[in-house]
Amino acid sequence: SRSIDLAVIPGDGIGQEVVAEGLKVLSAVLPQDVKLETKEFDFGARRYHATGETLTDADLAALKPHDAILLGAIGDPSVPSGVLERGFLLKLRFAFDHHVNLRPSKLLPGVATPLAGEPEIDFVVVREGTEGPYTGNGGTIRKGTEHEVATEVSVNTAFGVERVVRDAFARAQARPRKKLTLVHKNNVLTFAGHLWTNVFNKVATEFPEVTTDYIHVDAATIYLVTDPARFDVIVTDNLFGDIITDLAAAVSGGIGVAASGNINPSGEFPSMFEPVHGSAPDIAGQGKADPTATVLSVALLLRHLGYEPEAVRIEEAVSADLAERTGKPARSTTEIGDALAVRVAG
Amino acid sequence: SRSIDLAVIPGDGIGQEVVAEGLKVLSAVLPQDVKLETKEFDFGARRYHATGETLTDADLAALKPHDAILLGAIGDPSVPSGVLERGFLLKLRFAFDHHVNLRPSKLLPGVATPLAGEPEIDFVVVREGTEGPYTGNGGTIRKGTEHEVATEVSVNTAFGVERVVRDAFARAQARPRKKLTLVHKNNVLTFAGHLWTNVFNKVATEFPEVTTDYIHVDAATIYLVTDPARFDVIVTDNLFGDIITDLAAAVSGGIGVAASGNINPSGEFPSMFEPVHGSAPDIAGQGKADPTATVLSVALLLRHLGYEPEAVRIEEAVSADLAERTGKPARSTTEIGDALAVRVAG
Ligand SMILES: CC(C)[C@H](C(=O)O)[C@@H](O)C(=O)O
Ligand SMILES: CC(C)[C@H](C(=O)O)[C@@H](O)C(=O)O
Repeated sequence: SRSIDLAVIPGDGIGQEVVAEGLKVLSAVLPQDVKLETKEFDFGARRYHATGETLTDADLAALKPHDAILLGAIGDPSVPSGVLERGFLLKLRFAFDHHVNLRPSKLLPGVATPLAGEPEIDFVVVREGTEGPYTGNGGTIRKGTEHEVATEVSVNTAFGVERVVRDAFARAQARPRKKLTLVHKNNVLTFAGHLWTNVFNKVATEFPEVTTDYIHVDAATIYLVTDPARFDVIVTDNLFGDIITDLAAAVSGGIGVAASGNINPSGEFPSMFEPVHGSAPDIAGQGKADPTATVLSVALLLRHLGYEPEAVRIEEAVSADLAERTGKPARSTTEIGDALAVRVAG
Repeated sequence: SRSIDLAVIPGDGIGQEVVAEGLKVLSAVLPQDVKLETKEFDFGARRYHATGETLTDADLAALKPHDAILLGAIGDPSVPSGVLERGFLLKLRFAFDHHVNLRPSKLLPGVATPLAGEPEIDFVVVREGTEGPYTGNGGTIRKGTEHEVATEVSVNTAFGVERVVRDAFARAQARPRKKLTLVHKNNVLTFAGHLWTNVFNKVATEFPEVTTDYIHVDAATIYLVTDPARFDVIVTDNLFGDIITDLAAAVSGGIGVAASGNINPSGEFPSMFEPVHGSAPDIAGQGKADPTATVLSVALLLRHLGYEPEAVRIEEAVSADLAERTGKPARSTTEIGDALAVRVAG
């Protein structure tokens, strides 16, 4: 018999609320024969204030044996900027070698977009997750003086770039359009840019069916609002991926519906799935948060663990739910979760 | 009697065509008593192929005595990516200490935007131009092997950040809304982020009338498409500024109308004004390029040199021209230039 052993990190703000709905839908979609076990972990602002800890080696050891991790959101204005981001979110991505940060963008029928017309949007961004400007390399001298110098070092390795580029090619190959776009800034960041471009062109020879192109990150933001249909799969570096996936989320229905996976494809470490949105402390505890992004992240989680039919059922339920929203009064977090649970079970 | 001594760099592709119209409008708007002298410089792909040179010390010395520089566009697919960007454009910005990269975004009446509704867009981005990830610091080891490592170093100094932040505060102070937003990624790029944030907060105390806020660059791309009216003046680093100003151009009428100035406020070196768009080799030589962005860059140039009434006349002419475009057949580059020249003279 099958089983899923899930580490659950509700986290801060609306994290608690949306994760509860994600688990509700997960329970509802799983067949009887699949045993679901969940273990909740208390990370985030509360823990940090109580203990000063963000993510210890013991925490990592406790998380490691799980099949996957479901995360709500981490972050609170009471904690200085960077402490939880670097000390928890990025530490976890790096420790568990989450080098494929997967962020699909699909504008579903009935969903509002800030773009005029009815653009077709259905692409996925494969963002590198363990290198680039996110390594924390760099430093500060003469801090706080008029002679302060602060550096940030983007570190890019052939090893790190090749594995994520190959993953992106495989994903493009598996999609009907079979198109992969490299997004970088290789005309200015020429060291990293050449590495990315050369590796991309090399791996391309292994995937002759995949059409490829390259665009600079600045131009990519233009296309994302003027011609998002041009994109099928995008592969890009950690920082560029961070920026363009927020924009991608905004044009394809907002961060209320944007899901993501931090994937370790080898399975050596558990992969982590989380909504793209943050902890939204301004609306926390009010039942106002839309759990859809978390529910769609559960679908990514299921797909990653091999539960493709169940992943599809969730995605279809979300589509149907979104299509019926127009003109209706806003529902609470649990109402949306309940409705999705009913749909996936039915 | 007054005079303007202009260095003109038409450059590659459509650069030639749009600069001709920019100069046409400049001549038309200047009062009789202002003597306009122009000297043309042949930089770009042609020169590079003929001589291997992009921008020599002698070139810099020849450009230096001019009051300002008007640039069309530099770049051609026949030249490897990065050669002209780093060897000409960035070399010039760095050599002439163009630390204020000014990029206004205003959605003018009648102009098409990819955004739904009728968003109000009227903000200006002050992008740092001489630091950050654009310094060319970094390198590559084991190039072309599976063990290649490529780094890019973002260099940020209190000196460099403070001068551009102060410039941005002064610009915000001079605008009706008096609002300045710092855009960075200080939760991840904590070394540079702290420097930017601390300097920003320090300079803020000198401008008590200016309202300030901070947003991460990823979130900024969301606001640029969902609520661009929230922005008045933005100050940001070189790379973030590159990315968000292309997006800003896209939402406020497209790069056909986006102007920019690379400004050396001390006047020690001539400032350079250029359209945000590139050389567009696909439409070069066909009279299809819209010279409006170049004409608006001429307005920025005039304002910088103290010709405020003439700058305003150009901006009003462009507004009027754009407002009348809807439904009319497309005009050629020279037709648009002629129409604008007539308007500013009239
Ligand atoms: C919170 C922050 C560390 C994170 C990132 O920059 O990766 C977030 O913006 C994201 O995209 O998941
Ligand atoms: C061409 C390139 C070097 C340049 C930049 O990145 O600054 C361009 O994109 C711009 O924004 O002026």
